[in-house]
Amino acid sequence: MDFIFVIDILGVVAFSISGVLTAMRKELDVFGILIIAFVTSVGGGTLRDVLIQSDVSWLTNMAYIYVIIGTTIFAIVFRNKLKYLRKSLFLFDTIGIGFYTVVGVEKAISAGLPPITCIAFGTMSACFGGVIRDILCNDIPVIFHKEIYATACIMGGFTYFLLDYFYLPQDLIFIISGSVVIAIRISAVVFKIKLPKVY
Amino acid sequence: MDFIFVIDILGVVAFSISGVLTAMRKELDVFGILIIAFVTSVGGGTLRDVLIQSDVSWLTNMAYIYVIIGTTIFAIVFRNKLKYLRKSLFLFDTIGIGFYTVVGVEKAISAGLPPITCIAFGTMSACFGGVIRDILCNDIPVIFHKEIYATACIMGGFTYFLLDYFYLPQDLIFIISGSVVIAIRISAVVFKIKLPKVY
Amino acid sequence: MDFIFVIDILGVVAFSISGVLTAMRKELDVFGILIIAFVTSVGGGTLRDVLIQSDVSWLTNMAYIYVIIGTTIFAIVFRNKLKYLRKSLFLFDTIGIGFYTVVGVEKAISAGLPPITCIAFGTMSACFGGVIRDILCNDIPVIFHKEIYATACIMGGFTYFLLDYFYLPQDLIFIISGSVVIAIRISAVVFKIKLPKVY
Repeated sequence: MDFIFVIDILGVVAFSISGVLTAMRKELDVFGILIIAFVTSVGGGTLRDVLIQSDVSWLTNMAYIYVIIGTTIFAIVFRNKLKYLRKSLFLFDTIGIGFYTVVGVEKAISAGLPPITCIAFGTMSACFGGVIRDILCNDIPVIFHKEIYATACIMGGFTYFLLDYFYLPQDLIFIISGSVVIAIRISAVVFKIKLPKVY
Repeated sequence: MDFIFVIDILGVVAFSISGVLTAMRKELDVFGILIIAFVTSVGGGTLRDVLIQSDVSWLTNMAYIYVIIGTTIFAIVFRNKLKYLRKSLFLFDTIGIGFYTVVGVEKAISAGLPPITCIAFGTMSACFGGVIRDILCNDIPVIFHKEIYATACIMGGFTYFLLDYFYLPQDLIFIISGSVVIAIRISAVVFKIKLPKVY
Repeated sequence: MDFIFVIDILGVVAFSISGVLTAMRKELDVFGILIIAFVTSVGGGTLRDVLIQSDVSWLTNMAYIYVIIGTTIFAIVFRNKLKYLRKSLFLFDTIGIGFYTVVGVEKAISAGLPPITCIAFGTMSACFGGVIRDILCNDIPVIFHKEIYATACIMGGFTYFLLDYFYLPQDLIFIISGSVVIAIRISAVVFKIKLPKVY
């Protein structure tokens, strides 16, 4: 439980900072920066919960709000030092999307959705915070044209159902599927792999 | 029932291809193209269902997901031939909005909404997939400034309630209202009619 | 009750006209103008209601729809005279956000949310119509970088809970918190106060 909580919070920290960085590049004021940090962190999960008519978790769980506000203040104050954290942030972010993908898949399973939809929901949980961030900042969402990001989540979701098919224990499925997301995302960045475009 | 299903699928095909074309023009990668095809097809109905707190149909109906994925692959592979399908696609799209308008009106009636709101919901079902497509692609939604599209849906919605007032049978109301949407949309394109702008 | 209703309607009028002005600047057609007026007026409350899984009020309350359509027609017809109304519109808008902030806070309290979330919901109710307006018009939301607007709402929300802590009567809390929003917003405009940016 504590382990899960730490991963969740690391993900929120990484997503918040990615929001702060995008918002500062767009010269938003401090309120704008906070909102962008917020939607980047919780946007994907919120969209998921609205679509499956589940309670939106950040409405009542204050931990998210405190972490996002704290991270935003931290990131603004130390904005000139953040480049030294670049690798840690990439790692947190990658662990975060691995975690959120699997959480999203499991929430969709609980809601009784079919496997392909569950994989889509896992991907949405992990990626759509960034999509909303980019829309609010008037950019085309970066995951639609620049990075292997969603693809890693989709592969992780497939892994989840593949392992489930062989009746592996739940915890193991959780860890392996999340790790697949992380491994693919890191490989894609290290080897500069991109999805093909079509003209 | 089968007739209804064929129309529904033709609409999804046309909307998906319109999404693929917009996404390719914006140079998105294959994941981005698929997502844009998806939101163009199901975005309007999803917004409607979330607002009336109804179940979102594509979550459990796999037919939509298969058709959208299949159409996207088809459209990417045959992207250089799509221009030969221009007229068929326009026809599918137009039949699709006629159909979705009436479906949206009927869903809103079932939810107990007043007539004007039902007409708005019919229009939203048919048009807001395209609005979300354009927002994700960082354009001002094309239906807000370029084409007679929503107007056709609004007229179809009015026709629905007009005929309902005269107690016509349900099937006839469905077909006539949908046909009004189709007729107005085709006329607007053939005669190059646009809505007035205001400066 | 009547007093509340008048304030609500003044807010809708001001928000609709701000939508019409933005939409005309973007050269939208009359349908686009109407939609932008609509989302500017009801967008914040709609997002709030969807997140707390409450009924969306404009679905069944026709007063909003009539006022928005009427205001839009008025604003289009008298578009060249609107500049003479500039001060009244600013006042209506400011009264409107004061009112919507407090209504949003109270709705979130009824939904059982914790104080900070309630303040966020009050701010969202008052401000996110404008955010959706700007996104649909392909701008970065103006409240993220130009104006003291959300900050006034946040202060009003804090005032609400501060007064609540001292057991003031409900009506008085309502009026004082709303007035705080209005006073801060007017002061910020009169003294040209902006939130700091960060580079």
